[in-house]
Amino acid sequence: MKESPLVSPTYGGVAIDMMGSDLGPEELFDGVRLALKNFSDITPFILVGDGDLLSSLLSKYHLEQHPKLSVFHASQVIEMDDKPIQSLKQKKDASMIRALELIQARAASAVLSCGNTGSLMAGSTLKLRPIPGIERPAMASIIPSSEGYFILADVGANPQSSPMHLAHNALLATVYCQKVLQIASPRVGLLTIGTEEGKGNELIQKAHEKLKQLSAIIHYVGLIEGFHLFSDHVDVVICDGFTGNVLLKSMESLASYLKAFAKKEFLRNPLRAFGALCSRGAFEAIKTKLSSERYGAAPLLGLNGTVFKAHGSSNAKVISYAIHMASEVSRIGIQNDEAELICRAKALLK
Amino acid sequence: MKESPLVSPTYGGVAIDMMGSDLGPEELFDGVRLALKNFSDITPFILVGDGDLLSSLLSKYHLEQHPKLSVFHASQVIEMDDKPIQSLKQKKDASMIRALELIQARAASAVLSCGNTGSLMAGSTLKLRPIPGIERPAMASIIPSSEGYFILADVGANPQSSPMHLAHNALLATVYCQKVLQIASPRVGLLTIGTEEGKGNELIQKAHEKLKQLSAIIHYVGLIEGFHLFSDHVDVVICDGFTGNVLLKSMESLASYLKAFAKKEFLRNPLRAFGALCSRGAFEAIKTKLSSERYGAAPLLGLNGTVFKAHGSSNAKVISYAIHMASEVSRIGIQNDEAELICRAKALLK
Repeated sequence: MKESPLVSPTYGGVAIDMMGSDLGPEELFDGVRLALKNFSDITPFILVGDGDLLSSLLSKYHLEQHPKLSVFHASQVIEMDDKPIQSLKQKKDASMIRALELIQARAASAVLSCGNTGSLMAGSTLKLRPIPGIERPAMASIIPSSEGYFILADVGANPQSSPMHLAHNALLATVYCQKVLQIASPRVGLLTIGTEEGKGNELIQKAHEKLKQLSAIIHYVGLIEGFHLFSDHVDVVICDGFTGNVLLKSMESLASYLKAFAKKEFLRNPLRAFGALCSRGAFEAIKTKLSSERYGAAPLLGLNGTVFKAHGSSNAKVISYAIHMASEVSRIGIQNDEAELICRAKALLK
Repeated sequence: MKESPLVSPTYGGVAIDMMGSDLGPEELFDGVRLALKNFSDITPFILVGDGDLLSSLLSKYHLEQHPKLSVFHASQVIEMDDKPIQSLKQKKDASMIRALELIQARAASAVLSCGNTGSLMAGSTLKLRPIPGIERPAMASIIPSSEGYFILADVGANPQSSPMHLAHNALLATVYCQKVLQIASPRVGLLTIGTEEGKGNELIQKAHEKLKQLSAIIHYVGLIEGFHLFSDHVDVVICDGFTGNVLLKSMESLASYLKAFAKKEFLRNPLRAFGALCSRGAFEAIKTKLSSERYGAAPLLGLNGTVFKAHGSSNAKVISYAIHMASEVSRIGIQNDEAELICRAKALLK
């Protein structure tokens, strides 16, 4: 098994990097099983990683003959602290890289990885290439808000964005929003501090000019501030990857802190606990709304192929949704629309 | 009254820019009255703004003879969309500028303004000068977390920070944390994306090196991510003013969205509403913890003088706390300690 890759006849589905999770391949495997159970119409998966280990997991759960599962052996693993470019050079047989190569070879239609973001970004760019006109992919997260959801992009793919990168991100996120949230003309805002012209920093000022040039092809509503985020002001929030990543993680941190604090307070005495019991429907509704499980994975937009990144610490449930989402997005297909919009933008952007 | 400024014999307190609020001078005046009522040991205030208007407010509430209140007339107002440098040149008699000049003339010990942040930043720097070694002041917010509070700096004074600015901010925020949160050796973290060495952007990498050089005089615990914010990992979070401002406003937006969503869910049916009534102690505790009222104003650190900025939309209650805080911080005095630490840092920073 170590010599020649194990290739099954079941192709065209989601290639899953089984080795990149902080919680280990077993948790990912539980996610795979959950996805098979919950989403009957899902595409097949190719499990990429240590062949012996994956085969033993398949046999443990009597899944060796499952028509939607196959294994592709990869002997190496990219670790979280590996340097992106170096990891690509030194670990050619890493599960993440092999998964990307399956798209390249048209043997898979999408990749899902929980691994090193930098390596996934560099590897995807190298193996799949950005769509024409795009320099760097962007990562987009779907976040719950008062009237539904909004898309935040970029959430970490490109921490040193240029104004042109931000303009491209607006185009890519518009397509993603149209396809996934099914909003025909998504309202796009550029996140800054102080919405008066000339405020913010140089990046924002220049990106704002570029976004105004795109108003014929996207619905750019202008500069927005942090307090606009959850008030249904826009459907797409554009920022650089540094700000977006800090924001996303801080908001998750705030939400879980509030949850823990509320739990402690509601259980502080029997009367409060009784009250909480009466109101448990409200708690369930809040929990469902805030759950990042459903949208726990984010795509790398702007590539010739569907690549999803999930948190390193994603549990089986999150993974099952992530697999489903990667499967759905690759089925819908967003690359042609992305390419078309980027092409139309070319004439508008000075 | 338009000719010569109205100067009362009561000096040495907080000069309040009465004209900069989005809610108008009346709301600010209500805040003044609330502060007088709730904080008996508070320093005197000098109300800076339109003398006729302020005098009529004083007489409306029979406060003309109040020993802690005086009026200083200023004929102009800096608006929210005024450009900072231009506003300083063209509006020399603006309430904000006159308030700062009262510190300069040692007639006031602190300034509180709800006005244009950029103008306040530029005006303070010009009128009060930064303490030796400091190039640009930093704005620091106090934010509730699981085990108390943490300080986030900079939250918007300097959106184009250099690595040296971030190092200085760490020193300034350390002193502020020691004095206000009374933590002897505050743990300082630098906010980034991915805590492995070499991640983040260039600014972060260079600032990280500088902060390591300061480990003899501050408790630098290293790089932190968004998810560390509310978990009692550090007492001081350092970031550039753009990221900090976006973060602060987004978190406020998220908290108020969650509050509104929870309220709707808890009132959805009579049983839930009854439950909420039983648990109302928990709601009160959460409300108190999350309230930004107590720490609704942020100081500009690193200046020869105490300057506090409150939101343009601060209500009377927030204003009353802000006045009290400006009064307390000017009484404690932080400038000498800031200057000493900056001086000691000089030999360490390469």
